[in-house]
Amino acid sequence: MAESALTPEIVELLRRSSTATMTSVLARYGLRNTFLLGVRPLTPGQRMVGVAFTLRYIPAREDLDHTGTVDNLTDPQRLAVERIGPGEVLVIDARGDVRAGVLGAILATRIKMRGGAGIVTDGAFRDTPAIATLGLPAYCRAAHAAANKTVHHPVDFQVPIACGGVAVYPGDVLVGDDEGVVVIPRHLATTVAREAAEQEDLEAFLWEKVRQGASIVGVYPPDERTLAEYRARRAALSS
Amino acid sequence: MAESALTPEIVELLRRSSTATMTSVLARYGLRNTFLLGVRPLTPGQRMVGVAFTLRYIPAREDLDHTGTVDNLTDPQRLAVERIGPGEVLVIDARGDVRAGVLGAILATRIKMRGGAGIVTDGAFRDTPAIATLGLPAYCRAAHAAANKTVHHPVDFQVPIACGGVAVYPGDVLVGDDEGVVVIPRHLATTVAREAAEQEDLEAFLWEKVRQGASIVGVYPPDERTLAEYRARRAALSS
Amino acid sequence: MAESALTPEIVELLRRSSTATMTSVLARYGLRNTFLLGVRPLTPGQRMVGVAFTLRYIPAREDLDHTGTVDNLTDPQRLAVERIGPGEVLVIDARGDVRAGVLGAILATRIKMRGGAGIVTDGAFRDTPAIATLGLPAYCRAAHAAANKTVHHPVDFQVPIACGGVAVYPGDVLVGDDEGVVVIPRHLATTVAREAAEQEDLEAFLWEKVRQGASIVGVYPPDERTLAEYRARRAALSS
Amino acid sequence: MAESALTPEIVELLRRSSTATMTSVLARYGLRNTFLLGVRPLTPGQRMVGVAFTLRYIPAREDLDHTGTVDNLTDPQRLAVERIGPGEVLVIDARGDVRAGVLGAILATRIKMRGGAGIVTDGAFRDTPAIATLGLPAYCRAAHAAANKTVHHPVDFQVPIACGGVAVYPGDVLVGDDEGVVVIPRHLATTVAREAAEQEDLEAFLWEKVRQGASIVGVYPPDERTLAEYRARRAALSS
Amino acid sequence: MAESALTPEIVELLRRSSTATMTSVLARYGLRNTFLLGVRPLTPGQRMVGVAFTLRYIPAREDLDHTGTVDNLTDPQRLAVERIGPGEVLVIDARGDVRAGVLGAILATRIKMRGGAGIVTDGAFRDTPAIATLGLPAYCRAAHAAANKTVHHPVDFQVPIACGGVAVYPGDVLVGDDEGVVVIPRHLATTVAREAAEQEDLEAFLWEKVRQGASIVGVYPPDERTLAEYRARRAALSS
Amino acid sequence: MAESALTPEIVELLRRSSTATMTSVLARYGLRNTFLLGVRPLTPGQRMVGVAFTLRYIPAREDLDHTGTVDNLTDPQRLAVERIGPGEVLVIDARGDVRAGVLGAILATRIKMRGGAGIVTDGAFRDTPAIATLGLPAYCRAAHAAANKTVHHPVDFQVPIACGGVAVYPGDVLVGDDEGVVVIPRHLATTVAREAAEQEDLEAFLWEKVRQGASIVGVYPPDERTLAEYRARRAALSS
Repeated sequence: MAESALTPEIVELLRRSSTATMTSVLARYGLRNTFLLGVRPLTPGQRMVGVAFTLRYIPAREDLDHTGTVDNLTDPQRLAVERIGPGEVLVIDARGDVRAGVLGAILATRIKMRGGAGIVTDGAFRDTPAIATLGLPAYCRAAHAAANKTVHHPVDFQVPIACGGVAVYPGDVLVGDDEGVVVIPRHLATTVAREAAEQEDLEAFLWEKVRQGASIVGVYPPDERTLAEYRARRAALSS
Repeated sequence: MAESALTPEIVELLRRSSTATMTSVLARYGLRNTFLLGVRPLTPGQRMVGVAFTLRYIPAREDLDHTGTVDNLTDPQRLAVERIGPGEVLVIDARGDVRAGVLGAILATRIKMRGGAGIVTDGAFRDTPAIATLGLPAYCRAAHAAANKTVHHPVDFQVPIACGGVAVYPGDVLVGDDEGVVVIPRHLATTVAREAAEQEDLEAFLWEKVRQGASIVGVYPPDERTLAEYRARRAALSS
Repeated sequence: MAESALTPEIVELLRRSSTATMTSVLARYGLRNTFLLGVRPLTPGQRMVGVAFTLRYIPAREDLDHTGTVDNLTDPQRLAVERIGPGEVLVIDARGDVRAGVLGAILATRIKMRGGAGIVTDGAFRDTPAIATLGLPAYCRAAHAAANKTVHHPVDFQVPIACGGVAVYPGDVLVGDDEGVVVIPRHLATTVAREAAEQEDLEAFLWEKVRQGASIVGVYPPDERTLAEYRARRAALSS
Repeated sequence: MAESALTPEIVELLRRSSTATMTSVLARYGLRNTFLLGVRPLTPGQRMVGVAFTLRYIPAREDLDHTGTVDNLTDPQRLAVERIGPGEVLVIDARGDVRAGVLGAILATRIKMRGGAGIVTDGAFRDTPAIATLGLPAYCRAAHAAANKTVHHPVDFQVPIACGGVAVYPGDVLVGDDEGVVVIPRHLATTVAREAAEQEDLEAFLWEKVRQGASIVGVYPPDERTLAEYRARRAALSS
Repeated sequence: MAESALTPEIVELLRRSSTATMTSVLARYGLRNTFLLGVRPLTPGQRMVGVAFTLRYIPAREDLDHTGTVDNLTDPQRLAVERIGPGEVLVIDARGDVRAGVLGAILATRIKMRGGAGIVTDGAFRDTPAIATLGLPAYCRAAHAAANKTVHHPVDFQVPIACGGVAVYPGDVLVGDDEGVVVIPRHLATTVAREAAEQEDLEAFLWEKVRQGASIVGVYPPDERTLAEYRARRAALSS
Repeated sequence: MAESALTPEIVELLRRSSTATMTSVLARYGLRNTFLLGVRPLTPGQRMVGVAFTLRYIPAREDLDHTGTVDNLTDPQRLAVERIGPGEVLVIDARGDVRAGVLGAILATRIKMRGGAGIVTDGAFRDTPAIATLGLPAYCRAAHAAANKTVHHPVDFQVPIACGGVAVYPGDVLVGDDEGVVVIPRHLATTVAREAAEQEDLEAFLWEKVRQGASIVGVYPPDERTLAEYRARRAALSS
């Protein structure tokens, strides 16, 4: 997919803004359901920016999935792991079912080695104590020790999926911080990156005023006087 | 799909057994998760036997789905409705989300006119008072007046899906009674039809004994003496 | 409240359309969360049209609510019941908590005697077997035998509330059928009544075509040819 | 258990009062959690009065429960069924887990033949279409076709259990109507039966007044004047 | 509200006891539902003591809430923030709905600058990584990036509300530790503060005995001998 | 119970493997439901290995449980605490109900003093800030300040129970790490300990290869060449 790579500038802009700000920018474009519900960082303190590589699970069926074997050349989970490219995030639709892990530490390591930018699911990971040591951003609803085929059947990848109640299309941009993960439709990625950075700059200014004791009235949201002050400050800084 | 049609004999056998019996037969083959959880008949008193035609929904995205328009030539829901063939059951993966209907009365009517054998979802139908009058078996988790695109996006059809916590593959056989819906993997349909009919015949005999006052000891499950009595009765009837 | 009464014409129009149709009309005006989630008719086969009279419950506190006494002159539940006017629907915000009934048969009877048009809650009613005999439309999430103060505290009435995940403002119009209850903001009541009636008329025509074997293509949604045919039929009928 | 039998008079009194009234009487004695949450009649229109015979399930373990065999002489479920006596109600603690039935039609029939007064669970029954024809009061949270050992393991009987969030001790009295099931501690059964009958008599009088147009003020709850009127009426009737 | 301020002595006493102890003291007064269910500290290691300033949300309606604007002079959320006084805790009834944040970092900062003692909700906060740095005790059920009006509508403040399944009246005292938040009815605040401090003192003594190897028999709960020993120790310490 | 003690060698082996690995080994023996759902470590960074001592709770009844007294000589919770032996883990079936704690810091301390290896529940603990300081592994679904009898009634101990959706029999082996708790049927404890240690050794080797850049193909699962390499490495290390 040619569009798979984000420019380093956009990645950098997205890395600097919070998911809260991006959610607000997306709401301006009419998109109000963009944050994965119930999906939390396994290890706080990391930032994730990447392009969605989707993987879809359905419920396991005993004759297909409880065989105790897995074939790396046909199993969609394994194929997906070996196709993840640099800057991509593996997003797994687990139907919110946390009764088994969707992925463990060895596969997570492989994703990291391939340059993957993170792993995300609305299910559970397994081997979470080990995954937490990898330095790979990981977001999930829970931890569960059981292997994926206990309750899941990986069925296909790079199709549109549901994750945490949000639609994720292959190629969408996923950004994660300690609050969680926001999904940015691919065609809006550049716009959101730029507008979020601008909004963060303005809000940093407003926040500073509030920290210094200003009322929110006239400040948050800013009135014309506050905006003028902000523009003056910004002009002064950039001159 | 050549395998789409079930023989009339198998359909008839499946129609005569209860979903409880079929679930037991499937358990003998190691399949214990075959009954759709929380999916109930909209109108009791009907039997459904048909071949799964699957349709998959993901969460709606406002720019794609809140447009107020629908194109019958590209929308997967509409394409699915116009491809349903005689004896097929439309099964919709709604991720258990009942905050909108997945289908209303006009589409349900069209499915019936095309010879469809039923409609099933783990979401909600809309226009349920009207659907209830159609004579088309309909199974769902709830009723909701809102149109599907309020929260759903039809994304593809005839792919393996989840419904009510069970895997449904296109071509699987769905049987419904007042208890709910059982999913029979296609390759087991004939086996299940025959063994279920046999088990029902035996259990009718056992049930009759219990109704006449027999203890369950020696009868349910039957011991050798009871089985011999059953075989004798059956031989007498068929001679 | 002067606006409390709906004209008989509007009531009649609202009584003739389904909640599914009204939900669609409201979506045209950008309102997509108007149908009470999980709230079902206690007794199918009734229609409800009325103006919202709201009542709000919070959790009970033992010293205030487990006293075994109730004062009709100060208890907000009792005050509300004795203020309900003709054509009004008592809507109770029970926070979705079904661990006690919000109202029983005697109060429901009193509401009916005062001309009330129905009772609605996202909690449970008690005495449901008796309420079901009253001929008063009643919508709830469950039945529970316990009296309201076991877990609820009636706190105020005629304030905006939540019910079934939807905002209900005093004076809003509530319409119920066998599918459930839709909330129509007061200022849209006339518009929705008229547009819903028109849409029902068109859809009856389209449905009839589908029942006669028409494909949905060109019919649902209708293309220009189908719309022309509809208009001609309608003109013929009204001439 | 000597206390197992209720006198016919008490059974008759309990049969005439509603679960709502009994719940109120129990609240007077400080017991506010007596109604089984989410447990509904399989077939409306029946009354159940009986003494609790408890049966406890824990989660199944594959090596113990997925064997496909059941031994009537050691399986606690089977032992319980063959010990139920006249006027007893089998109450099954299924931990609210509805992913399999706890009991099917043949065992339900056997319970009926033994004089059992009903079956109750906070799980699901299987064969519900058949159970519904037996004339045996049955209360459950859901229907599920799978056999009990799919997810349950019957472990012991006649021990105190949880059912629908309520404690049930062997020997407690269970009363069911179309609203659901109330649990009356055994030592309170006579008291509740008598006080409930009295309260029902009074409330029938009050309800009649409200049906004739009386305000609830002074009537519900009744003031001294209304109580005097009630006593006079009652005296007149019994003289 | 004249009663708004707690005396420094009471604040100090409340700060030293655990919410577990206070919950026990409240149970002695018959109040057993005083701890907010599912509401957790955003940042462990803080203590919160303050007076409840309540704010109530209902579901958003698109025409009222998806406008992208907020008016600090009329919006109840903003009015509440600018009215919070020293020692007050903003408690927001979000109906347990965590699909959007109820408040972000700038408003939380403003509350802190006004002397607020904490923020509490049964919904989610947004900007949680930033809020976690403020040093303002914050308790919530979840984090969510979306702004409040995505799903909430602030409707009024300083009315009785529900939060985490508990009634909160304006002026009630809220105490938080790493376990969560307890609600103390205002008229019991002094009593609870004193009795909790006494109970903590006794339990520290008992705990020490258990740490040194004592059996709980005779110690927890303490028998007369242990109580005498405790009183002697205490007398020795205070003499 | 003679079988109560595990040999130090087995304890040591179990301590070294992850719950994820043990879950996989158990699945080889057909046991796929062995990990407690939703039960999390109160304090990460600890390992727990011990023998299950079970305790069962049912719902409280006000007349039995809201008395404010507890008798260490008859209360099953207290009896259990004083019977816990070295190397045992107290496992409490709280029916998943987190509306009160099942145990507080003083009892947890007593368990530790008696040599207990941990405490586990599918409910909540109370005094969690204090329990977290004890160095006793503790696993629960939540924290709640209320005392157990607010909603629970301890009813018996050393009977088979449900915990986190898994069957726990007295004498089963419980192993906990930061992911959660796995239940090993007693007769499989030695087998699982040995096979898990072997699998961990192999997986450490495979993980290292993946960390060094190997594809998972041929490595995870290992093909014959990789297995030969592993055996050679192991032989070299042990020679």
